[in-house]
Amino acid sequence: MIYPKIPLAQTVIQLCKAKGVKHIVISPGSRNAPLTIGFSNDDYFKCYSIVDERCAAFFALGIAQQLQEPTAVVCTSGSALLNYYPAVAEAFYSDIPLIILSADRPKHLIGIGDGQTINQKNVFENHVLYASNLKLDLKEEGADSVEELPIFKSMENKVETLLGLKKTIQEYNEEEIDTTINRALLENGPVHINVPFDEPLYDMVNELSIKPKPTNPVDKPLEIDDNVLGDCIKDWNAASKKMILVGVNQPNQIEKRWLDNLAADDSVIVFTETTSNLHHDTFFPSIDKLIAPLKSEDFRKLQPDILLTFGGLIVSKKVKAFLRKYRPQQHWHIDLKKANDTFFSLNNFVKTTPNYFFSKFLPQTQSLKSDYNSYWKHLEASRLAKHDDYLNSIDFSDLKAFDVILSNIPNDTILQLGNSSTVRYAQLFDLNKTLKVFCNRGTSGIDGCTSTAIGCAVVNKKQTTLITGDLSFIYDSNAMWNNYIPSNFRVIVINNQGGGIFRILPGHKNTENFDTYFETNHHLTAEHLCNMYGFKYESVLDEASLKSSLNSFYSEGDQPKLLEIFTPKNLNDEVLLNYFKFIG
Amino acid sequence: MIYPKIPLAQTVIQLCKAKGVKHIVISPGSRNAPLTIGFSNDDYFKCYSIVDERCAAFFALGIAQQLQEPTAVVCTSGSALLNYYPAVAEAFYSDIPLIILSADRPKHLIGIGDGQTINQKNVFENHVLYASNLKLDLKEEGADSVEELPIFKSMENKVETLLGLKKTIQEYNEEEIDTTINRALLENGPVHINVPFDEPLYDMVNELSIKPKPTNPVDKPLEIDDNVLGDCIKDWNAASKKMILVGVNQPNQIEKRWLDNLAADDSVIVFTETTSNLHHDTFFPSIDKLIAPLKSEDFRKLQPDILLTFGGLIVSKKVKAFLRKYRPQQHWHIDLKKANDTFFSLNNFVKTTPNYFFSKFLPQTQSLKSDYNSYWKHLEASRLAKHDDYLNSIDFSDLKAFDVILSNIPNDTILQLGNSSTVRYAQLFDLNKTLKVFCNRGTSGIDGCTSTAIGCAVVNKKQTTLITGDLSFIYDSNAMWNNYIPSNFRVIVINNQGGGIFRILPGHKNTENFDTYFETNHHLTAEHLCNMYGFKYESVLDEASLKSSLNSFYSEGDQPKLLEIFTPKNLNDEVLLNYFKFIG
Repeated sequence: MIYPKIPLAQTVIQLCKAKGVKHIVISPGSRNAPLTIGFSNDDYFKCYSIVDERCAAFFALGIAQQLQEPTAVVCTSGSALLNYYPAVAEAFYSDIPLIILSADRPKHLIGIGDGQTINQKNVFENHVLYASNLKLDLKEEGADSVEELPIFKSMENKVETLLGLKKTIQEYNEEEIDTTINRALLENGPVHINVPFDEPLYDMVNELSIKPKPTNPVDKPLEIDDNVLGDCIKDWNAASKKMILVGVNQPNQIEKRWLDNLAADDSVIVFTETTSNLHHDTFFPSIDKLIAPLKSEDFRKLQPDILLTFGGLIVSKKVKAFLRKYRPQQHWHIDLKKANDTFFSLNNFVKTTPNYFFSKFLPQTQSLKSDYNSYWKHLEASRLAKHDDYLNSIDFSDLKAFDVILSNIPNDTILQLGNSSTVRYAQLFDLNKTLKVFCNRGTSGIDGCTSTAIGCAVVNKKQTTLITGDLSFIYDSNAMWNNYIPSNFRVIVINNQGGGIFRILPGHKNTENFDTYFETNHHLTAEHLCNMYGFKYESVLDEASLKSSLNSFYSEGDQPKLLEIFTPKNLNDEVLLNYFKFIG
Repeated sequence: MIYPKIPLAQTVIQLCKAKGVKHIVISPGSRNAPLTIGFSNDDYFKCYSIVDERCAAFFALGIAQQLQEPTAVVCTSGSALLNYYPAVAEAFYSDIPLIILSADRPKHLIGIGDGQTINQKNVFENHVLYASNLKLDLKEEGADSVEELPIFKSMENKVETLLGLKKTIQEYNEEEIDTTINRALLENGPVHINVPFDEPLYDMVNELSIKPKPTNPVDKPLEIDDNVLGDCIKDWNAASKKMILVGVNQPNQIEKRWLDNLAADDSVIVFTETTSNLHHDTFFPSIDKLIAPLKSEDFRKLQPDILLTFGGLIVSKKVKAFLRKYRPQQHWHIDLKKANDTFFSLNNFVKTTPNYFFSKFLPQTQSLKSDYNSYWKHLEASRLAKHDDYLNSIDFSDLKAFDVILSNIPNDTILQLGNSSTVRYAQLFDLNKTLKVFCNRGTSGIDGCTSTAIGCAVVNKKQTTLITGDLSFIYDSNAMWNNYIPSNFRVIVINNQGGGIFRILPGHKNTENFDTYFETNHHLTAEHLCNMYGFKYESVLDEASLKSSLNSFYSEGDQPKLLEIFTPKNLNDEVLLNYFKFIG
């Protein structure tokens, strides 16, 4: 087998292997050659070559999102690394394990005017779990031993663990890499390993010169304080209005028996979003549709005594506004890692997994006779009827297009939603329950929706459909510059000739300034990009042709396909605003 | 006139106006609506709407690079901001004044799970001159007065200057904005102003409610320590081999009389690069051509006693390698701001402008009789002859294409060069002296060459030509998503079907791994992008059709034009490597 000659490259690669980092997304460069050589010559790794680092990182994010395992991106020195940042932030807020491996110059060549050289150290500081800055040798750090490195002088605990030990630079680097990857594994988030390499960069050997010793990441055993649990049970059993609100949540994550248990309790309402990937007949999958028309007395009726949340970020602005104004007496959040005080009423962060919490908690709760659930289920039925009436009455528009698209996605496939109009529109429909739904809601950016969806499609046998807007799609058009896109990948672009979402916001529509700086009107289509990158392209302008196109859209072919739906931009906002009036 | 109602938005906008920040590049969003409304409704400002923030920032960089005045970019909250980072780093290392105005949520809505929210504070810390984080009000900072803000508690000098003063939050913000923009003005670099806005965001008024008081940036008077100057003069007059090496340098920056003075001295060699924008018959404009074939005894002959450098970063790797191995006894760098110890021999950083230094220094130096200049001029003449012979003998290839292109660029126009093959090839030719030449050599990234060139073209009446490679061009293809591109803009893409530069480096060519992960082979062309974005497209495959196309390429038209030159990738590296052998 071929290995890079540089021991530090071998160390990084062997530790990635030992820890199950299998998917490696490489962007071209020379400084990262030792890593590229090592990863691409070892069959353990599945390597991908993606030129645009912004897309590369979102592509890796899509892989990690699907596999729930750390995925690495590898780039050369300089500004290449900075192009990873949007995806790094998304990974940080969406709890996705992304391992950033950046090659760097040796320290003595940084800050002296060499090409492709920036200050890479801790460059993602605000948005990574941990960053390690590996060292090439002690002399250039101005130290005779590892203990003399400035980093140790400023970090007391490290000094203590090292007391009496004379570590080599190799041991120091090994420990740093080990710690960094373990952080990503244990805490599900992005980490950064900055790796200096000196020339020659391209030398290879047939034997490894180092054998790093990985440590296993140790999960803390799950536990809940008995007093906390006791209080929860007591308060829960006494409360007649309990609301569960589920954020972004991986499919099949919550055990069915707990969902059944919650579903059977009349005093419990479970609000889910399209990104919650949780379904039950008594749950409420379309929050906005239910609460948008409510008046203050309705809100007081809906206001829960206890709000229990789990999962990631919440999409619905309406439910956020509701719960911030009509605050629950208690808000509990169940998560291993963090709790957002989204509604300014968080009083109990239970640091464990939802399943573990439910296993200790639900068996001790009593189901309460209440009309809390049935009252709102009744109202929901009326909304659903009006929803159908309204959809049957309107002209072709964004809302209508979503109705048609969402009812035509094949069962048991994966749906990726773009930001932000797309995911918001999707929330208004009762989605096919066999779909698994994903959306980059960590930062809610438009910058990498397509790349993420392609990463998802590449590691799934099941078909992936991306629905996205025209601005999001063009923004991330380099996503298509990718040799790995499976032929069953499908993209649906809702082209309303600009940022349709801005027409819903309280700006001053139809002025020149609005059109230019908010809606950013354009007349572009996805057709040329499809021709460039080998996608089969079709476009439609009305409901009939949309339905007819969808008939064959999911049939097999030898190319990925893109369907572009042109909707009337001057009508879309009106249709949506009237929808909320109509269903009330 | 229409103003945003929010006083902080008025403050930012009025201070930009007072300080001459005229060009404002806006990306769409809602959180930044107060700034967008304010800038776009005031005719003082020239506003541009660019959706992809990565391109927006490089476009602004191109404007600032040309006008040598601060240019602002404005974006919404969240990951939008992070897409600016590649251009921010380029501005940092290229000394270009870029003002980043990011809208943010109010502090109480950060870190609680709201959409499009990241930790924007100091997010560019490694690569900005200064970052100010404005405050919405004191209460949410947990302080009763400005002096109680944590920032003041941790910054002693600020506490002192504020002692006894009761500043309002408005005064604090004004001072921060004032300081930040002044830093960009005085030190020519990127700065970041993070501006929190609370809803409502779209309200407008007809009168300003605030009148901020800007302070003028005060340049320090230019000066040189007499002892330093005296030593310089003494050493210079005693040295028989003086080398001047000029990095990236704005056109017309150095007074002609000083260039004439240096040119007249036989003991002085002036090495310039394509990006130096400096010409004289006795200067050496093509360093690599001269020194590539040298042996160690030649290098010792060329090795200067004194190396004087000014300007920005050096492109030539060969001159860097030479001067690092054959170090000068002294290296002086003349610059107002910083000095890179590029050759590990910097002993004198003269902190002033080159013109001021020369005005004090050159009148006191004596021109020395020496054959230092003439010896190398003689050798250069031989290289030039061989260069011509070689160019006449080779097949169509990258090198040949550059020969044809560079001799056909119209006089008195602007040339933007992509990274890195493009600028390196251009270095081998004696460029038309009437051209002004630019290249993003701060970070030498491929990420924004086209956007920068378009920014340049937009603010120049003179024609701009961009020469770039296929990877750079596709990487920054969103640059063309721009409504301001003048019809006289010209792009020449050298398409060698991958990263041709990697074939020159010591990798293992023509293996599958090399093709995939280093050269990143592809079969894409620029044609579809031209069709999408309204560029007139033409492509050529050989010398004759290239020459014929160039005949009409610069003729006027109603669209910008792109000429794509396909070169044989398997030949290009050989032709270049043989070139260096041949000219020796």
